[in-house]
Amino acid sequence: MVSQRSLANRPSSSDPLPERLLMGPGPSNPYPEAMAAMGRPMLGHLDPAFLALLDETMERLRAVFATANPLTLPISGTGSAGMEASFVNFVQPGDPVVVGVNGLFGERMCEVARRVGGDVIRVDASWGQPLDPEALLGAHASPKVIAVVHAETSTGVRNDVATLAAHKGEAILLVDTVTSLGGIEVGVDDWGIDVCYSCSQKCLGAPPGLAPMTVSPAAMRRRVPVPSSWYLDLNLLSRYVAEGSGGRVYHHTAPVAMIGALHAALGAVLAEGLREVWRRHAECGKLLQDGLEELGLSMFAPEGARMPQLTTVVVPDNLPDGHDDRSFRAMLLDVYGIEIGGGVGPTAGRIWRIGCMGHTARPRNVLALLGTLREALKR
Amino acid sequence: MVSQRSLANRPSSSDPLPERLLMGPGPSNPYPEAMAAMGRPMLGHLDPAFLALLDETMERLRAVFATANPLTLPISGTGSAGMEASFVNFVQPGDPVVVGVNGLFGERMCEVARRVGGDVIRVDASWGQPLDPEALLGAHASPKVIAVVHAETSTGVRNDVATLAAHKGEAILLVDTVTSLGGIEVGVDDWGIDVCYSCSQKCLGAPPGLAPMTVSPAAMRRRVPVPSSWYLDLNLLSRYVAEGSGGRVYHHTAPVAMIGALHAALGAVLAEGLREVWRRHAECGKLLQDGLEELGLSMFAPEGARMPQLTTVVVPDNLPDGHDDRSFRAMLLDVYGIEIGGGVGPTAGRIWRIGCMGHTARPRNVLALLGTLREALKR
Repeated sequence: MVSQRSLANRPSSSDPLPERLLMGPGPSNPYPEAMAAMGRPMLGHLDPAFLALLDETMERLRAVFATANPLTLPISGTGSAGMEASFVNFVQPGDPVVVGVNGLFGERMCEVARRVGGDVIRVDASWGQPLDPEALLGAHASPKVIAVVHAETSTGVRNDVATLAAHKGEAILLVDTVTSLGGIEVGVDDWGIDVCYSCSQKCLGAPPGLAPMTVSPAAMRRRVPVPSSWYLDLNLLSRYVAEGSGGRVYHHTAPVAMIGALHAALGAVLAEGLREVWRRHAECGKLLQDGLEELGLSMFAPEGARMPQLTTVVVPDNLPDGHDDRSFRAMLLDVYGIEIGGGVGPTAGRIWRIGCMGHTARPRNVLALLGTLREALKR
Repeated sequence: MVSQRSLANRPSSSDPLPERLLMGPGPSNPYPEAMAAMGRPMLGHLDPAFLALLDETMERLRAVFATANPLTLPISGTGSAGMEASFVNFVQPGDPVVVGVNGLFGERMCEVARRVGGDVIRVDASWGQPLDPEALLGAHASPKVIAVVHAETSTGVRNDVATLAAHKGEAILLVDTVTSLGGIEVGVDDWGIDVCYSCSQKCLGAPPGLAPMTVSPAAMRRRVPVPSSWYLDLNLLSRYVAEGSGGRVYHHTAPVAMIGALHAALGAVLAEGLREVWRRHAECGKLLQDGLEELGLSMFAPEGARMPQLTTVVVPDNLPDGHDDRSFRAMLLDVYGIEIGGGVGPTAGRIWRIGCMGHTARPRNVLALLGTLREALKR
């Protein structure tokens, strides 16, 4: 066993942390309101003052999801817990599940769906191209679920959800909005999404740790009666997050401070106005993409499927000072304190993923990155 | 859809939150160091500065669990996610699982084990009495898992883990230390616990949102190869939290701010010294229990199974001013800003659960509660 004294007294990462400009695929730099909220007094998870804050968080989530779904809540885990909650509550062994795959998170959906016994029918597009809605709609005669990632975090490609929603028939449409919610339009009710999840740490501008989620009443009627997960069982969760005939029923201890941070971040977003926040993301994305092209870099995601909040570019093949992709990004972080992301899977080493999300989506941050790249790419 | 303006501008729970002395069964008031840590600059989940902090958090967790297990990590969810991770990784359909049940959390273990297909053999003791280790050891000839709650949060009863560990044979011993870790002795390696989980928000003195967990190498060799949960798959998690031959493999975005808070809370615990922290809990528990008896209240948990960090007392049957259990506790919260917990299940309305955990475990807080009760119970 490690000596306690030595652990406590040695120089440690309790020393000041470096300050970073977070322009990777997430987390983004949280809104100051969200940071401040985490320092507020701790409350119990059954304290009426906390329950009022939770209620209002859910109301604010309904506004950003553009939905009237009563069951709109923060899941007590990260975005991937939102994905798992979506599949475990709506897929049981043998259910046909059509999954669109054009990146890492579509792949992950297949894996999560298979683990709960789903009969996965995957519809692929190559990494970097958008999915074909017709192919998804035609993949199976009567799927229980059609699942798609709105904004593929691994490639920076936007998939068309509205068309799917309009023609999905009886299928439950399950959509990942981890990298889109709060950055570009997501219309849960207008489009007709049944199950939708996101994360706290990207365009919503809170720290990582929660997965906002919304489920239509019609989908709730078709849920798995007893999912294999107790922790993510929406039926049990719904009895804590809303007052039923027997009052609120304790399920697990809510992550009080994180919910306070999400509440405050959503407050910042809604005070600015959701459309204004989208406009700010659009403006910053254009500034960034134009600037990167001016620097001679090539966009990876094709025109029409690009997104302002997450830009992908091809790594230049002659980086200065003998740098490769990894060492160049490490240098950006070490020397300039700016984080950008690399590729994953087939795009590892081939692309950079540059996020401009939430509170980070400010022209001054874009210009800081562009100015830094101009300097750092000098040969 | 709700109007965004009205949500943003109306008076809201962004107004100052009430300050509470948290003496329920959790959360406790976090250490100031943990609160401050949440306000530190946000880092990416792959930033070397964050990974160093994560490594050190795991090292500190090894110290409080008293283990050398390499796989000792914070699970990205609350204590109940730790419970689910424990069962989903070690129980597959048909596995015989012996579960000790003498309160809500033993009941919950049965439910979680059943949902992953375990063949649950429950061994009951009445709520308020400790489990009989002999009964647990004799319940099945060769269980895959024996599961027990060390400190039953619902009743304030401590169960004997060391005896179980000494005689468990080939079974995987799975122990819930949600309400014990950091408050009373937990000796993972000395006792011989195979799988152990806890929470962040009780005796460890951080906010709720993480489940510290440790798993022995021997148990890892007997894990379920592909658990139904992707999010809680320890094999995948182990490749992110530790450097393997292929470096760190991204799994999900770690809850960076929460891990910073846990890191800082563990730092406070270890700087004081784990034994000194136990001594402080013991001192406060005795002061509280003696004081409650002086006020004429009766202990619920029997002598020998009581714990300093969570005291249960019988609700007096003639509360002043026509109060019942619920209204009396609401009054304590509203008027005096002190939270204590009520009973659950068969003890609802019959007992109070009074926590004295983590940073809250200070004589001044105990005396504040005793003084307040003396005043509030006046008839």
